[in-house]
Amino acid sequence: MIEEKTRLNQRLPEPTLRRLPWYLAYLKIMRNKNTNFVSSTQIANAIGIDASQVAKDLSFVEISGKTRVGYDVNNLADVLESFLGFTFRHKAFIFGVGSLGSALMHDSGLDKYGLELVAGFDIEPSLIGTEINGIPIYHPENCARIRAELDVQIGILTVPAERAQEVSDRMIAAGIRAIWNFTPFRVKVPDNIVLQDTSLFAHLAVMFNRLNQTEI
Amino acid sequence: MIEEKTRLNQRLPEPTLRRLPWYLAYLKIMRNKNTNFVSSTQIANAIGIDASQVAKDLSFVEISGKTRVGYDVNNLADVLESFLGFTFRHKAFIFGVGSLGSALMHDSGLDKYGLELVAGFDIEPSLIGTEINGIPIYHPENCARIRAELDVQIGILTVPAERAQEVSDRMIAAGIRAIWNFTPFRVKVPDNIVLQDTSLFAHLAVMFNRLNQTEI
Repeated sequence: MIEEKTRLNQRLPEPTLRRLPWYLAYLKIMRNKNTNFVSSTQIANAIGIDASQVAKDLSFVEISGKTRVGYDVNNLADVLESFLGFTFRHKAFIFGVGSLGSALMHDSGLDKYGLELVAGFDIEPSLIGTEINGIPIYHPENCARIRAELDVQIGILTVPAERAQEVSDRMIAAGIRAIWNFTPFRVKVPDNIVLQDTSLFAHLAVMFNRLNQTEI
Repeated sequence: MIEEKTRLNQRLPEPTLRRLPWYLAYLKIMRNKNTNFVSSTQIANAIGIDASQVAKDLSFVEISGKTRVGYDVNNLADVLESFLGFTFRHKAFIFGVGSLGSALMHDSGLDKYGLELVAGFDIEPSLIGTEINGIPIYHPENCARIRAELDVQIGILTVPAERAQEVSDRMIAAGIRAIWNFTPFRVKVPDNIVLQDTSLFAHLAVMFNRLNQTEI
């Protein structure tokens, strides 16, 4: 964890953090095409944002573009991937093995970005003791013990909305330090707990609304 | 489609659109608890935002709270659900039946929010002709025909990043009007096409970064 700590010990602006994966995706494509160097202008054009913004965002990762030749594609991709935490393995629990929870357990793609799902928890008796995609499912009463044993920091919240707050509170009591909330409920957490909301339903609502707009 | 068109024909600010599902989730919980009325202050406290913001957001949905008693929980939940497009069935295709694409096909929860996955498309021969969770998988060459037959407007993009732009272009050529992009690639679309990005990897990056922050 030491290397990552060093690299990430600066509080980055969230918009920058959200743009960096775009640059990484583009750099990986360039790497597959055997391109050796790209300029911030090329990245900017490919992604559709200002070149000055690209240069500013990349200044956070402590790598500098060479005048004329630009950034070394290989090197920048590696540095970004590590900087973003994708090369480090972060163990995570899934709380709520319903349709979305089990879907995420089927998605082995998260693993490539450093998120390793090590266990699921659910109160449904027919699920307990089974596994999905090799990931075991336990009763929540075992959460604190397993968390300590495996040193798990992240909990993914995919329970029904009405249980979201209660389950979050339990996760935190068990020692979970970051919650990735997929429920449409706005859970409250103490200041020292990281909360990341991913509301698929809010995104759906925006998309449905805009789709109706463009019909008119 | 007429009813929905009428209701959604105003261009709502995106932040409002993103907050409305929070109110809906809270109202559904209140409804399950047999609560009849809630005030904007109650909603605001439960969700952790300003009461004036709640009232302003809800003013878009053309329902008004009664003085003293507040909003009718049942009625407001129904109106919001319909307003957000969750009660209308929107047919969608999945492009790219890899780990994330197949995971989404396993997630029957999207259906409850009005998104009906009717087909998946992939170039992998071993997938074509099979189905996941009852949803058939076809070769992309059939996309335009099936889209027209079923009147599908939405395409979910879960292909590898390096194919994201090309597949988007094809979707649009086949008549798709809204793209829900789960890839980390920033696809470009014409102005009349709705694009909704859901970058799980960007959210992961933010969470990993904040988690490292709180350790120090």
